[in-house]
Amino acid sequence: MIAPEAIIRLEDGAVVLLDQTRLPGQRCERRCTSVAELIEAIQVLAIRGAPALGIAGAMGVALAAHAAPDHLAGLRRYVAEQAALLAAARPTAVNLAWGVAQAQAELDRDFGSPQEARGRVVACARRIHADEVARCRAMGRHGAGLLGADARLVTQCNTGGLATGGYGTALGVVHALAERGDVPHVYVPETRPLLQGARLTAYELAEAGIGHTLLTDNAVGVLFREGVVDAVLVGADRIAANGDTANKIGTYSLAVLAAHHAVPFYVVAPTSTIDPATPSGKAIPIEQRAADEVAAFAGVRTAPAGTPVRNDAFDVTPAALVTAIVTEHGVLRPPYALAGERP
Amino acid sequence: MIAPEAIIRLEDGAVVLLDQTRLPGQRCERRCTSVAELIEAIQVLAIRGAPALGIAGAMGVALAAHAAPDHLAGLRRYVAEQAALLAAARPTAVNLAWGVAQAQAELDRDFGSPQEARGRVVACARRIHADEVARCRAMGRHGAGLLGADARLVTQCNTGGLATGGYGTALGVVHALAERGDVPHVYVPETRPLLQGARLTAYELAEAGIGHTLLTDNAVGVLFREGVVDAVLVGADRIAANGDTANKIGTYSLAVLAAHHAVPFYVVAPTSTIDPATPSGKAIPIEQRAADEVAAFAGVRTAPAGTPVRNDAFDVTPAALVTAIVTEHGVLRPPYALAGERP
Repeated sequence: MIAPEAIIRLEDGAVVLLDQTRLPGQRCERRCTSVAELIEAIQVLAIRGAPALGIAGAMGVALAAHAAPDHLAGLRRYVAEQAALLAAARPTAVNLAWGVAQAQAELDRDFGSPQEARGRVVACARRIHADEVARCRAMGRHGAGLLGADARLVTQCNTGGLATGGYGTALGVVHALAERGDVPHVYVPETRPLLQGARLTAYELAEAGIGHTLLTDNAVGVLFREGVVDAVLVGADRIAANGDTANKIGTYSLAVLAAHHAVPFYVVAPTSTIDPATPSGKAIPIEQRAADEVAAFAGVRTAPAGTPVRNDAFDVTPAALVTAIVTEHGVLRPPYALAGERP
Repeated sequence: MIAPEAIIRLEDGAVVLLDQTRLPGQRCERRCTSVAELIEAIQVLAIRGAPALGIAGAMGVALAAHAAPDHLAGLRRYVAEQAALLAAARPTAVNLAWGVAQAQAELDRDFGSPQEARGRVVACARRIHADEVARCRAMGRHGAGLLGADARLVTQCNTGGLATGGYGTALGVVHALAERGDVPHVYVPETRPLLQGARLTAYELAEAGIGHTLLTDNAVGVLFREGVVDAVLVGADRIAANGDTANKIGTYSLAVLAAHHAVPFYVVAPTSTIDPATPSGKAIPIEQRAADEVAAFAGVRTAPAGTPVRNDAFDVTPAALVTAIVTEHGVLRPPYALAGERP
C-alpha cells in the first residue's frame, strides 16, 4: 500500500503530492508552492478523489497562510481570498470546499501572533489527513462485514489510497478483506476518459498483491450476466441528504446493472463527503470537462475534428439504487436521512 | 454518404477496401491481392461489421478462384482450402462464413471452363454486395416507421455504410429518417477499445450532416436518466434462432439501461446475420481479442505492465430485452422464431 505521506504532505511552504497524471508509467512528485499551483494540480487531476481533495484543500489554506502578510488582519484577508479560489477549483466533490472551510475556520479565533495562527492551520490540515485515513480504516472494517469470503467485486474509477490520502474508501474495503485473510477479486473498469481505473486502481491493486481484471467500461455488463459479481463497491464525490450520490461518470450505469441483476450496490464514503446542504442529487453541480479528454488520447485525435462532445465528469445515482452507504460510523440503509452524519 | 464501391470492391485479382483503422485521420485504400492479405485486413479490423464481412468473405472466395490452378478440380480444391481459412478469420459474425459459403457454393455446379467458374464467383460476390446495400435501404424504411419525428437515438459501435458495404443497418435507419425530412440526433458512445463510435460513426454522421454527440461509453446512462433517449438502435453480429443477439461489447449494458428506463431497444440487421443453426446466445462463440487493445493506446501503456485484462469483442443481449428486430422483410416482435428468416 502507498504510504499516506507519499500521496500528499505539507512541507514548509509547499504541498508535495504524488503526480497521479504520470502513473503508472512514472512515479514522481509535484511540488506546489502556491495556491495557484495547487489549483492547477487539482484541475489536471494530479491529485483527485473526494477525500484527498479535502486534505489538499486544507493544506492549500496552510499554503496561503504561509504566504500571507505577517499581521493577523492581513493574513485572514489574504487567506480568505485564496481559500475562495481554491474551494472553487472543482465543483462536484464537496470535500474540497469542506477541507478549505475546516482549515480556514481555525483562523476565526484570537491568536497571539500570525505564526501561532499559521501553526494552527498546519495542524488542522495534518489532522484532517490523519482523520481521513482513520475513517478509511473504519469504513474498511464496516464494509468488509457486508461481504462473504473471497468476494468478486466491481468498482469504478479509483477509490484507493491515491483518492483518499491513504488506504481508500471502496478499495479500503478490499484492503480490509485481504487483511482478514480473504482472497477478493476486483473487476476494474478502465474508467474513461482519464482511465483512473486502468492507471491507478490496477496500479494500487498490483502493489497490494490483490487479484484483479481490467476491462473496458462497456464490458462490465457481461460480468453481471455471467453471475460473477457479488457486489459493486464505489466511492462518492458528494452524497446529498437523501442519499443520492454523485460519483465518477459510469457509476449510474453500474447501479442500474446491479439492480437489474439483484447485486448489492454499496457506496463507501466518509461523512466528510455527505453534504447536508444539498437536499437531493438534482442540486449537485456536475463538472463539465474538456472535449479533448474524449476526442483525443496521448496527442492522437480519436474523433473527427469538431465532433460535438459531452463530457460530464460525474453522474448521480439515485438513493433508490443504493443498497447501503458505508461510512466510518457504520452501515446506513435506506431511507437515508443524512443531515446529521458529518464529522 | 460514402459510396459502396469506395468501402469495398472487387478488382481483377484484388479486394480493395477503405482502411478503417486509419479513419478518421486518413482516408486511404488497402489493396488485398491474396486471401492471406484479406484475412490480415479482417483481423486488424481494416474492414469490419457483420454485413461488410459477408461481402468481404464472398470477394475473398473470388480472390482465391483468381489465384487457383487453371483446371476445375484443382480450382475447387484450392478455393475450398482458402475459404476455410477465410471463414475462420473472425468467429462471432456469422456473415463472414455465410458470404464465403454463398460464393463457394457457386462452384458446385458444372462449368465449361475455370474461367466461367471464376466469373460466377465474381458475379456472386458483387451480387451479395448489391443485395446487402438494398437490404439496408429496406431496413432503413422499416426501422424509420418505428420512430416519431426528430428522434433522439443511442447507438453503439459503427453500423453505417462502413459496416455494411453501404448505407448501414442501425445507422441506415438514421439515414432513412433524414431522407424523410426528420432531424434525428444520434448519441454516439465512443465504443472502446477500438473506438469505432468515435472514429467511424462520428465520421459518417458528420459526412451526412446528421446531428450527433460523442460520449464515453460509461456516460450513456446519464442520457437515459435525463429522459433524452427515444430509442436504442444497434446492429448485430449474429442473431440466434431465439432472438438472442451478439453485438459489439457494451450492447448488453445499453439493453439493460433501455429496459430500466422503458426505452425501446431495436436490433437492425439483415437476415444474413440470423443463424438458424445457433439455437440461443449460449452457443455463439465470443471472440477474445488482445489485452493491449485495452491496456495501451497509440503506443502508450494505460495500465501497469502485466495487468490481467479481459477483452471480449462482443456480448450477447437476451431476446427478452430486444423490443423488435428490424430486417429487410419488416419488423419482428417477440417471441422470436427466426429459423426461416435467412435470405
